[in-house]
Amino acid sequence: MSERIKEHCGLYGVFGHPQASELTYLGLYALQHRGQESAGIVSADNHRLHARAGNGLVADVFHDHGVFSRLQGTSAVGHVRYSTAGDSSNRNIQPFVVTTKDGPLAVAHNGNLTNAESLHQELSAEGAIFQTSSDTELIVHLVARSQAETLSERIREALERLEGAFSLLFLSPTGLIAARDTHGFRPLVVGKKGESVMVASETCAFDLTGTTFVRDIEPGEIFEVDSGGQKSLRFGKPKLCQCVFELIYFTRPDSYIWGDPVDRSRRRFGRRLAEEAPAKADIVISVPDSSNTAALGYAHASGIPYEIGLIRNHYIGRTFINPSPFMRTFNTRIKYNTVAEVLEGQRVVLVEDSIVRGTTLKKLVGLLRRAGVREIHVRVSSPPIGHPCFYGMDFPTKKELIAAWNSEEEIRNFLQVDSLRYLSLDGLLQCVPGKAADFCTACFSGNYPVPIPPGEGRALLEETGEAWAQGELERLLSGLT
Amino acid sequence: MSERIKEHCGLYGVFGHPQASELTYLGLYALQHRGQESAGIVSADNHRLHARAGNGLVADVFHDHGVFSRLQGTSAVGHVRYSTAGDSSNRNIQPFVVTTKDGPLAVAHNGNLTNAESLHQELSAEGAIFQTSSDTELIVHLVARSQAETLSERIREALERLEGAFSLLFLSPTGLIAARDTHGFRPLVVGKKGESVMVASETCAFDLTGTTFVRDIEPGEIFEVDSGGQKSLRFGKPKLCQCVFELIYFTRPDSYIWGDPVDRSRRRFGRRLAEEAPAKADIVISVPDSSNTAALGYAHASGIPYEIGLIRNHYIGRTFINPSPFMRTFNTRIKYNTVAEVLEGQRVVLVEDSIVRGTTLKKLVGLLRRAGVREIHVRVSSPPIGHPCFYGMDFPTKKELIAAWNSEEEIRNFLQVDSLRYLSLDGLLQCVPGKAADFCTACFSGNYPVPIPPGEGRALLEETGEAWAQGELERLLSGLT
Amino acid sequence: MSERIKEHCGLYGVFGHPQASELTYLGLYALQHRGQESAGIVSADNHRLHARAGNGLVADVFHDHGVFSRLQGTSAVGHVRYSTAGDSSNRNIQPFVVTTKDGPLAVAHNGNLTNAESLHQELSAEGAIFQTSSDTELIVHLVARSQAETLSERIREALERLEGAFSLLFLSPTGLIAARDTHGFRPLVVGKKGESVMVASETCAFDLTGTTFVRDIEPGEIFEVDSGGQKSLRFGKPKLCQCVFELIYFTRPDSYIWGDPVDRSRRRFGRRLAEEAPAKADIVISVPDSSNTAALGYAHASGIPYEIGLIRNHYIGRTFINPSPFMRTFNTRIKYNTVAEVLEGQRVVLVEDSIVRGTTLKKLVGLLRRAGVREIHVRVSSPPIGHPCFYGMDFPTKKELIAAWNSEEEIRNFLQVDSLRYLSLDGLLQCVPGKAADFCTACFSGNYPVPIPPGEGRALLEETGEAWAQGELERLLSGLT
Amino acid sequence: MSERIKEHCGLYGVFGHPQASELTYLGLYALQHRGQESAGIVSADNHRLHARAGNGLVADVFHDHGVFSRLQGTSAVGHVRYSTAGDSSNRNIQPFVVTTKDGPLAVAHNGNLTNAESLHQELSAEGAIFQTSSDTELIVHLVARSQAETLSERIREALERLEGAFSLLFLSPTGLIAARDTHGFRPLVVGKKGESVMVASETCAFDLTGTTFVRDIEPGEIFEVDSGGQKSLRFGKPKLCQCVFELIYFTRPDSYIWGDPVDRSRRRFGRRLAEEAPAKADIVISVPDSSNTAALGYAHASGIPYEIGLIRNHYIGRTFINPSPFMRTFNTRIKYNTVAEVLEGQRVVLVEDSIVRGTTLKKLVGLLRRAGVREIHVRVSSPPIGHPCFYGMDFPTKKELIAAWNSEEEIRNFLQVDSLRYLSLDGLLQCVPGKAADFCTACFSGNYPVPIPPGEGRALLEETGEAWAQGELERLLSGLT
Repeated sequence: MSERIKEHCGLYGVFGHPQASELTYLGLYALQHRGQESAGIVSADNHRLHARAGNGLVADVFHDHGVFSRLQGTSAVGHVRYSTAGDSSNRNIQPFVVTTKDGPLAVAHNGNLTNAESLHQELSAEGAIFQTSSDTELIVHLVARSQAETLSERIREALERLEGAFSLLFLSPTGLIAARDTHGFRPLVVGKKGESVMVASETCAFDLTGTTFVRDIEPGEIFEVDSGGQKSLRFGKPKLCQCVFELIYFTRPDSYIWGDPVDRSRRRFGRRLAEEAPAKADIVISVPDSSNTAALGYAHASGIPYEIGLIRNHYIGRTFINPSPFMRTFNTRIKYNTVAEVLEGQRVVLVEDSIVRGTTLKKLVGLLRRAGVREIHVRVSSPPIGHPCFYGMDFPTKKELIAAWNSEEEIRNFLQVDSLRYLSLDGLLQCVPGKAADFCTACFSGNYPVPIPPGEGRALLEETGEAWAQGELERLLSGLT
Repeated sequence: MSERIKEHCGLYGVFGHPQASELTYLGLYALQHRGQESAGIVSADNHRLHARAGNGLVADVFHDHGVFSRLQGTSAVGHVRYSTAGDSSNRNIQPFVVTTKDGPLAVAHNGNLTNAESLHQELSAEGAIFQTSSDTELIVHLVARSQAETLSERIREALERLEGAFSLLFLSPTGLIAARDTHGFRPLVVGKKGESVMVASETCAFDLTGTTFVRDIEPGEIFEVDSGGQKSLRFGKPKLCQCVFELIYFTRPDSYIWGDPVDRSRRRFGRRLAEEAPAKADIVISVPDSSNTAALGYAHASGIPYEIGLIRNHYIGRTFINPSPFMRTFNTRIKYNTVAEVLEGQRVVLVEDSIVRGTTLKKLVGLLRRAGVREIHVRVSSPPIGHPCFYGMDFPTKKELIAAWNSEEEIRNFLQVDSLRYLSLDGLLQCVPGKAADFCTACFSGNYPVPIPPGEGRALLEETGEAWAQGELERLLSGLT
Repeated sequence: MSERIKEHCGLYGVFGHPQASELTYLGLYALQHRGQESAGIVSADNHRLHARAGNGLVADVFHDHGVFSRLQGTSAVGHVRYSTAGDSSNRNIQPFVVTTKDGPLAVAHNGNLTNAESLHQELSAEGAIFQTSSDTELIVHLVARSQAETLSERIREALERLEGAFSLLFLSPTGLIAARDTHGFRPLVVGKKGESVMVASETCAFDLTGTTFVRDIEPGEIFEVDSGGQKSLRFGKPKLCQCVFELIYFTRPDSYIWGDPVDRSRRRFGRRLAEEAPAKADIVISVPDSSNTAALGYAHASGIPYEIGLIRNHYIGRTFINPSPFMRTFNTRIKYNTVAEVLEGQRVVLVEDSIVRGTTLKKLVGLLRRAGVREIHVRVSSPPIGHPCFYGMDFPTKKELIAAWNSEEEIRNFLQVDSLRYLSLDGLLQCVPGKAADFCTACFSGNYPVPIPPGEGRALLEETGEAWAQGELERLLSGLT
Repeated sequence: MSERIKEHCGLYGVFGHPQASELTYLGLYALQHRGQESAGIVSADNHRLHARAGNGLVADVFHDHGVFSRLQGTSAVGHVRYSTAGDSSNRNIQPFVVTTKDGPLAVAHNGNLTNAESLHQELSAEGAIFQTSSDTELIVHLVARSQAETLSERIREALERLEGAFSLLFLSPTGLIAARDTHGFRPLVVGKKGESVMVASETCAFDLTGTTFVRDIEPGEIFEVDSGGQKSLRFGKPKLCQCVFELIYFTRPDSYIWGDPVDRSRRRFGRRLAEEAPAKADIVISVPDSSNTAALGYAHASGIPYEIGLIRNHYIGRTFINPSPFMRTFNTRIKYNTVAEVLEGQRVVLVEDSIVRGTTLKKLVGLLRRAGVREIHVRVSSPPIGHPCFYGMDFPTKKELIAAWNSEEEIRNFLQVDSLRYLSLDGLLQCVPGKAADFCTACFSGNYPVPIPPGEGRALLEETGEAWAQGELERLLSGLT
């Protein structure tokens, strides 16, 4: 995807390892693609919690190794974050640490609640105070108010009240608890490294920490590990509904989620796309790096050679404060450059994993034209995105989704390419691991597995497409170089 | 006082002025002596609150004037702080900002609750979560839980539950509320600047902002100002019990509290001391700057010339992280130097406002000896401090108070001075403004006007004086140069 | 190359454009791969120079757009740097700005002098003072001391004294001067954007700034542009000797240097390697990203499918201060992960552009083994590096170059791979653009085109290989996971 | 002085003490009043120099004690600075460290050269390059160019070329050298602490480091100490001409310079002022803190009681970036407050050490009026300042000196006070220690002991007083509250 989706979050947890906080650092390092805005680690030494967090990349927040000597203990949880709900102020950096009647408690959250608004009203009315704008604080309030006997039962009672998507890690001074919502929207996996237990958003983090994958946390499972061993509680009525977009774009290709390597799914999407939407072309190129695997699949299935025609600049650093209009016009070029030698005079299949607004892709098309390509055939390895996500994938409002208001031909015309084809939803679902019915495809189909109550969803849906019809295209085009 | 008392806090509030946050900055600047650890300002623009806070001096936290353009609105509250309860982490910086069913609310607090521990337990048991270790969060929980109808009534209900010392400022998007505990331990004054209402810990802040003093907030008063005008509610059973130590040391001499200029009280303490404890000497000098006024009073009453024999270095900057033992021995010298020309061969009356541990004073005596003074007669413009404070003055534990375990003669011997005399408690009380019965003298007399429940007070009292008898003096002496 | 060569520097210059400093920023952004340690920009407004520089990435040093309003003027030069000579202190950040009899002058330098030591001694003896440890300061001293009539002639006189590699940019308040050493070791190109003149280390920077490539600065050319137009002076006796390693590894593949796209050369290296050193394998993978193009060439020539078997983590952030031994063992894994799905059970050709110490490659081999590959056939798209570089490529000392002391078979054994083959020097030279004789191959051949005087070269050459024989391998292996 | 003179610099040096850099830190701490803009320390360990410097107070630049472990060695020099020549950029922070043919050399400088411009032109013409805008770099160039045999002789050769004011410290890896210009404008004293040698700008620094004063460095003396012992060289033709303003304002009152305690001189100024210019008044107050001693002298001689009527806020912190006009009007009030109790209804003698522009004093007068004083009699303990200083005291240009263009009566009227009297120059000179002829009084008399060549002096003198006549007063007044 050449446009940035505001990515959600990554979680890592350790129980029972002398280097708990260092391993959590490494796990977060591998999960950095799930969020670059802030990073935090909380460790537990059986008596107290120790916390450290800040804005920026994991390697920047923890660049002085001395911090690990202060993050004492044999358990830890960590979080990388790009906010999906809540603003980006310091108070919202996770893990979230509070004191309750249970003593200190840390919580790290990946996902988005759909009944946050009503819970907030209910708790406020009862006298709750809020210091952040995050869903996580809601969860902690519910846990603290529960009169159930043990912490894990209090958590169960709290989670029964939640609707929407959540993968969660809790850390008390003596134990680690992981939980996943009843639909299992977001991944969460358990592993072992010797006697230690590890939990992560994706298995690529296990590869880095030398951990063996054991199993997924199941939908509606509360998994607890402490000095007494492991045990699981269940809550709600599980109905598997995994986010298919994790497979298409978000998860790293070297991860293994939901019973299958991600790389394998993406390759199948590319192969299937080649079958559904062949093209007469000289080379296949991808929008690096997220579309690489699908492009390879397309190339192998079609017999058209795979080439590297776009170079991505990886030295990104901090984003500009107050860029000038002059500078803003360089947004896309600053990230991508073309390899003229590869492209000149060629008919090109450009494989992209998905299209959100279409504006960045349009600029890339401009770069390719300037590099002398003869024809451009865009092939998208997922269906058109016509509906916003309420479960933690930070698409924009419906108003801004190009496919919500335009036909394939209109989009092709907007992009000014020779042909444009999407993978069909049916084709996509034939390529996913396991059963098609176990996936959420709301962003493509509009079938929301968890209903969105009125008032929730921050007006994502209310917008009409009028704007598109009446000048949005022009506005968007005016920003292009 | 030559030893630093960990100072409590200063408050400033503005209602109805277009430069609300700038005036708050100026007010805090004048109150900086009440706390140098952190500074914060929250403003209100009728719809939202805007906050900015940080560790350090007011001028450092707000050194870029651009911050005021973000602190929009015509009302504001500010806080400077040296923690008396709670650690010094970022989360504890005030004003404390939360969202409750009333919407956003900011609170700034000066004082110390004596029933914090039991309130914490009670609220925790009911499911409250705590993100700070400050008393202020307790107060906000109580306000948020109240089911009374208006914000000011909810505040009244909350304050009824509190015991101990508190001067408070609350800011909502539309109004400012100030309150003072039923004993009136800490000062809090109201002023007017044109149509605007100002609230401050001390009148010296009004001098800086060009504000006219109107009156004290009364003990047990909740003073509210919003677009509808001013009104007051009452709570509890007022019994005036003002902290006499504010007069002796803490308040700035140019402030006017409790119906009288502070300078006048201190001058009376000095004059009275000269009558109670005359000395045969050539000059009177003070420990600058807090004892200057008392020393002037002593000089004028005794006829002995006032001189400047000690120079204080005001370029203090940040405190050392990890000083070496070598560096530590320079602690006192780095702050004070002697003027040999003034001191050599002289019999000196050294006026000090109070003695806590006595260690810094002992080092000063050493400096004076090295400068060639012939005799040193220490005169203290307050009685011996034998009891810790539970109402917000951060004395150390009873164990460390030199006068709790030693006679005047033992202290004189410890200090190695020619004579030592304190002002009598009776003498002190004859010099305070208003009625003697209206003052708290617990640190001198041990008569605590608000009882200290078991479990509260964090072991300040439990310590015995054994340590003093068995080596404390030696330990203390070993640190001296 | 999987081991980091301490990269040298990148230069960008603008003359005659109202957004001179912003364009320089963009140019440096594209050249970031040439140096990540520090970045600096100096602009000229006909009267004065304005400078801004700092440690870190371009985007971090210049992240507040306000800096450009202070970098006024229509000319500018910029520099990104990884020190090859000189330590990394702040004083050494470039561009280097001084005042001479000509007024203010800024200099940015890419390369390494071979007679720095003797020039330093000579200048010191004459009374020169040095504030940095960089070669650049030497150059400025020579310019300042010249009694020639114009600045460009003084520069010519200075450059006549230099030996070794240098591409240089000079900025005075009124003009821009670019120069390249007589061997043309490092690239330096001129472009035009409307009426403005641009100079850059590589053409990829022109792509970003929308500049049209015009020509190379020639060896021994001093190119000057000011309000009077452009002109060139010549110095020394040009003898083209371009660094072949720029083609192999250092330059970006989308750049066009020395008359040819870099991508084309690398692809030829890969194809030639496939002919010289075929392998029986199922897939071809590269060490990303620098070896991608050569791997594609190998795949296309051999008919073995190209695959993505290694994923590189691009979220690098700051390097650790004081990593623990535990953390150090994760050095390689933190950068690379394997795609098990692609690799398992496969016979793999692993294309690497070059081998310096061999230690990182060995760790990568370990990762591939753990991912289940059946056979590993390493193919290196350049010859064995047996000799250090004195012209600005920061290889380590001869002692540490694995190919200086070990046969191909010994290296294969060290790496524990099934086969290892390098591209022949002869094969390499048949693939370069233009004439083979126009390239420096000293690191492969030991034929140094500019002699290295005794005392220069900081002991790079003096080390014997004894260490390798007597335990270097063991030492290196002990650091591996 | 209630207006800030941009203060010059303070120096401290240590030879032969294991805690050399820590003692230098302490010395600078005591000298902080001589410059608050930057602080730096360089230490020597017989082989290398180690440096650390930064903008801000000594305690801020060196707040982490770990820095001293990196400032190794038994010798050190330190510098605090408020620039008198040169801008305030980082490059100008002292000590200045370079490498010359002698190896590394550090220099710290207090003073101002009057032939800097011509030396700069001469050295530039010979090919010198300049990286700073400080006089110090000129001195180092001259030392480096000297062909004399030893470092101290090269320094002598260099100093022979200098005109103006300079107290200097040089540090090589093995020795410390101190020098003072032939007029001895600025103080520089030698002390001993055990076997170690100390050098400082003022003796108050010796008090802090426990050092015994030995003697002044003499005018035209180069004092050298190394492992071979101490020795002195002489240069130029000494003609003592000590800055009388050091006695009036700049030096700390507890220092002992030029054979006498500063406190004693100031007290004499005050006594003499009382004789020359008596007043009918109830109390004497000073502008704190610099005028305190003179005010005491005035009070004792006149018999009018000394009082503290103005309180100075010592929590200054950083200066505002971009203050608003609103904020600017609080400039004076933020520093001073009145003690109404002391002032109300009184006839006041206000003792001020000197008047430069008069604007701050005017604002203070306003504050006093608002506090209810009945009469204000300003008494200045030095003569009218009518001439700028070229020897390191940073007065403004002649244009801005109020006494250069206005009579005493005009100034009185401008200040709006009941009476105004200055100490006579004759009276001043009768109170200085030693011979009157040994002092520079150029700022009062216009007799410049070292001539100011045309071109030097940065237009300080060229301005006419027209501006004053034509509206300066109005402009100044408009800024007042």
